[in-house]
Amino acid sequence: MVCSGFAQGLSLAARSLRRDGVRALAVESYGISPHRELATAAGLLIPPLPVDRHGARLDLLERRQDLGAVLLTPAHQFPIGVPLHPDRRAAVVDWARDRGALVLEDDYDGEFRYDRQPVGALQGLDPEHVVYLGTASKSLAPGLRLGWAVLPGRLLDGFLAAKGYAERHPDSLSQLTLAEFIESGAYDRHIRAMRLRYRRRRDQLVQALAGRAPQVRVTGIAAGLHAVLRLPPGAEPRALHGATWLGLAVQGLESFRHPEHPPEPGSDALVVGYGTPPDHGFPTALEALCRTLEAL
Amino acid sequence: MVCSGFAQGLSLAARSLRRDGVRALAVESYGISPHRELATAAGLLIPPLPVDRHGARLDLLERRQDLGAVLLTPAHQFPIGVPLHPDRRAAVVDWARDRGALVLEDDYDGEFRYDRQPVGALQGLDPEHVVYLGTASKSLAPGLRLGWAVLPGRLLDGFLAAKGYAERHPDSLSQLTLAEFIESGAYDRHIRAMRLRYRRRRDQLVQALAGRAPQVRVTGIAAGLHAVLRLPPGAEPRALHGATWLGLAVQGLESFRHPEHPPEPGSDALVVGYGTPPDHGFPTALEALCRTLEAL
Repeated sequence: MVCSGFAQGLSLAARSLRRDGVRALAVESYGISPHRELATAAGLLIPPLPVDRHGARLDLLERRQDLGAVLLTPAHQFPIGVPLHPDRRAAVVDWARDRGALVLEDDYDGEFRYDRQPVGALQGLDPEHVVYLGTASKSLAPGLRLGWAVLPGRLLDGFLAAKGYAERHPDSLSQLTLAEFIESGAYDRHIRAMRLRYRRRRDQLVQALAGRAPQVRVTGIAAGLHAVLRLPPGAEPRALHGATWLGLAVQGLESFRHPEHPPEPGSDALVVGYGTPPDHGFPTALEALCRTLEAL
Repeated sequence: MVCSGFAQGLSLAARSLRRDGVRALAVESYGISPHRELATAAGLLIPPLPVDRHGARLDLLERRQDLGAVLLTPAHQFPIGVPLHPDRRAAVVDWARDRGALVLEDDYDGEFRYDRQPVGALQGLDPEHVVYLGTASKSLAPGLRLGWAVLPGRLLDGFLAAKGYAERHPDSLSQLTLAEFIESGAYDRHIRAMRLRYRRRRDQLVQALAGRAPQVRVTGIAAGLHAVLRLPPGAEPRALHGATWLGLAVQGLESFRHPEHPPEPGSDALVVGYGTPPDHGFPTALEALCRTLEAL
């Protein structure tokens, strides 16, 4: 089903789940607050799953009986950047199957992998218990408002009912244009070209920081368009202040924390998107970032 | 505010009104059922206003105390095709001002007028109490999902809150393309050219029916892309059956009736859109329509 971006897909899933009597949707302890708000606006509780170096921890799934679904970024946890461990990939699908629950797979940047073998979609493990949510926002542009949901057939009517008349479809011209772009092979060529460009930027970022701010650990960079720069304990507010002072739009890891998840001491970090600046602006932005972090 | 078509604008208005404590939105006794459903989905009651040859009758507005708004098609009642009488235009705006209520003005085909002087937007009479809702669906294509709401400043926050994160904006590329189309003057040229073409089709329809089905009265044709063909009493079901048999997609007037509005004896009619067929298909479609109506 084509959606107006990932956000509509998530909103349809949340409303459809709620209508089916689901009370709670587990989410990751770090994520995008508007996504959490879409779920709560649909009437769902959203208990957080802590994220460690293997991705979201799943022990809560067994403990809470009111969970009907879980929202995950398994290929590249957003924003922390780790992939979900293969054991956990298997376990979460087993949980969904045993419970008759659903995994919502947010694959926001699956096209852009650098160091690792491609991670398959979780949806491939059990298409009857995973809803795959993809988007053109990273591969093309968020302004297009084009995303897609691949869902078990039994959920289609519920998604369509949630969609209703006011949200029935995104712009047909854009859909047809994207379809032609894909069929002609131009989309694939675009992805391959952009992957090289983004990888080059990432390497420049890593190299520059290794030289000028060796106390900063760059993590989460095996894929995607952002890096998590781990800072000395307590340094996040100062780093944010410095970055803002130099006109950089970066965010602190803290701003992604689920409000029900306790602050983690020593988790100071900046989340830096390196895909956004135009080519001519990237060196300047990188220089400003280095100056910010040198000064810590 | 740019919306994903008129439908999203109406849905935002309905949800925003409901959130402000409004219980009921009066609607016209004939209209589009999905529009009524958008309003009821937002939790509003939708009492019908009877439509006569001067447009919607307004006496109900004074009688019902729970009304916080009224939805009208003042330029060209849909589907009946009459304009709202100037006295009623003034009266409905007075009512809204006195009550602190709102008029939702659905101007779906205001660009296409033929026989009369242009009818100004009701919104011009009192921009603080009328929300103007326009659309590119008739002037360009419904698949674009582009509409616009011109609303009093005090309502903006409510509309934006209703919009939320999942529906925040339609495709930016389409918006920019339409903006350029308008600024370059090409949109105006397109409207003028289409107005001539649609007018020619309308004249062909009127002429053909006058010759071949003189018992049918063609009404509602001073503007827009559809005609209401008034039929002998009781003839609507047979006419619909005949049209379907010949592959024509036309609707009976009855299908637009508000379920709370009693059936009106002698209101048999077909609602015929003449804008849809491609040029090469129009003569064939017109011939099929004439054959259907000759046979009554």
